Amino acid sequence: MSLEVVSINGRIFSPSEAKISVFDRGFLYGDSVYEVARSYGRVFFALEDHIERLFNSARLIGLNIGRTPDEIISDIYKVYEESELNDAYMRIVVTRGEGPITLDPEKSTSPNVVIFVRPLDLPAPSMYERGVDIITASVFRNPKKSLDPNIKSGNYLNNIMALGEARTRGSFDALMVNREGHVTEGTTWNIFIVKDETLITPPDEADILQGITRKKLKKICHDNGISLQERFFTVNELQKAEEAFSTGSVKEVLAIRSVDGQVIGDGHPGPITKKIAVLYQKFILDYCQKKGSRAGKRLR
Amino acid sequence: MSLEVVSINGRIFSPSEAKISVFDRGFLYGDSVYEVARSYGRVFFALEDHIERLFNSARLIGLNIGRTPDEIISDIYKVYEESELNDAYMRIVVTRGEGPITLDPEKSTSPNVVIFVRPLDLPAPSMYERGVDIITASVFRNPKKSLDPNIKSGNYLNNIMALGEARTRGSFDALMVNREGHVTEGTTWNIFIVKDETLITPPDEADILQGITRKKLKKICHDNGISLQERFFTVNELQKAEEAFSTGSVKEVLAIRSVDGQVIGDGHPGPITKKIAVLYQKFILDYCQKKGSRAGKRLR
Repeated sequence: MSLEVVSINGRIFSPSEAKISVFDRGFLYGDSVYEVARSYGRVFFALEDHIERLFNSARLIGLNIGRTPDEIISDIYKVYEESELNDAYMRIVVTRGEGPITLDPEKSTSPNVVIFVRPLDLPAPSMYERGVDIITASVFRNPKKSLDPNIKSGNYLNNIMALGEARTRGSFDALMVNREGHVTEGTTWNIFIVKDETLITPPDEADILQGITRKKLKKICHDNGISLQERFFTVNELQKAEEAFSTGSVKEVLAIRSVDGQVIGDGHPGPITKKIAVLYQKFILDYCQKKGSRAGKRLR
Repeated sequence: MSLEVVSINGRIFSPSEAKISVFDRGFLYGDSVYEVARSYGRVFFALEDHIERLFNSARLIGLNIGRTPDEIISDIYKVYEESELNDAYMRIVVTRGEGPITLDPEKSTSPNVVIFVRPLDLPAPSMYERGVDIITASVFRNPKKSLDPNIKSGNYLNNIMALGEARTRGSFDALMVNREGHVTEGTTWNIFIVKDETLITPPDEADILQGITRKKLKKICHDNGISLQERFFTVNELQKAEEAFSTGSVKEVLAIRSVDGQVIGDGHPGPITKKIAVLYQKFILDYCQKKGSRAGKRLR
């Protein structure tokens, strides 16, 4: 038993021994799909949603995973059994496999499945209390017609360049806009703003990955009578919002304190952001307890 | 000595033994740059141009290769020494290296350098005599503002999806347009058309990789008094051109017979295409002989 485990096509490796062929198309071209999920008390939250999305990403690039969603879920828990982590980070990567060096996707037909189980690496609690400072990246989000952000793939340079820009400018993370100047999403997260007690998030048809947390928050808003609009907005409207927050499967709900140096609202996580964060924690707890989680009342 | 050799950070491996960590950012995110060059009689044509472009790609994504261009060229020839191939395909991949699983590029600072030397895989001679049938892909080429095609990187899904579409439709390859409907480039090649004895190719500022063959053809046109325009054109203008051909470092000059079922000119490689192909062969031969190549008069 150890903290960190990697499996490649069902075989378990220590991290330093886990290697893949340099002829793997994931390595050569980023020709792969992936998902990340987080466990709470040894239950992965919303894992079936993540695996459904993994299969959707694969469908969008014509990659045949060759296993069923249930088999993949069982594979993930088998790897998790090798780890003694209570709350873990899990990443699954499915590549189109190995073959001759050619872009032609039909030449590789035997996917490689790599599963990582690792300790969580979360922002410090003070980040959640304070909110984070972000910038607007100068690179635009990949447009759907070129590379649909709904394909959660091994092609992440667009996002890496945005995050690199944030780090160079001393910022926590970067937001990305499209050519029309509409806000799309962050490097690894969706965005919500609050205006007149209404939540606003870019619509499904925007150049975004439809996040699992975003989807769950839609349901939570509906169930709790919280007003939610899906529509485009600009960075300027974001900067003038009362509140803003980011959502992601690992970081959950994280308040945004400022954008390009412009402080949002009074510069502290607002009441609706806090309310959403608590409702989401409760939603996770309910889900995980139903699945037999050992997690207690406080999740984070 | 063998036909196929791979080196990883200077160590030689047989292809089946050549493996890289699954924590390598090339595998996880396509966070890498690469080049492909072709040898003629044990001299790589225009290798210094390829390595200059490798460093430019790296600069564009903020990757510090950590070696000089001359060292990289020497590395490539050292690997080539292990192969007995006379005319070879060489691919060099430089990744940002291994690190914790995070998009943050600053967390990995030790690049991995992988060099492949393999037999050439060229289209059949009949393809050169007949020309190839291509389609216009429905996916648009990545726009510069999102992911500059001048970054020859490990993010090739955009091109793979275009080629996959071509193969599904029974075509040899795919051409990509931008959002404005302008022709940009093929999946791994630049394009030229002929109209009124003038060559036309999309300009440097288009969403294209500035190909080495394209660059050499510009010089050849200049030196031989052949008229060349760099400007945008549509698929419709391409279909009505007198001749059309693709250019690439491995395939050299390859005539295009038809686009989306519409035959170009009389359906045979035209006189200017043939002239350019011969001039380019002569250009390669001169270069390689000056560098001590064993190649004879006929290169292909």
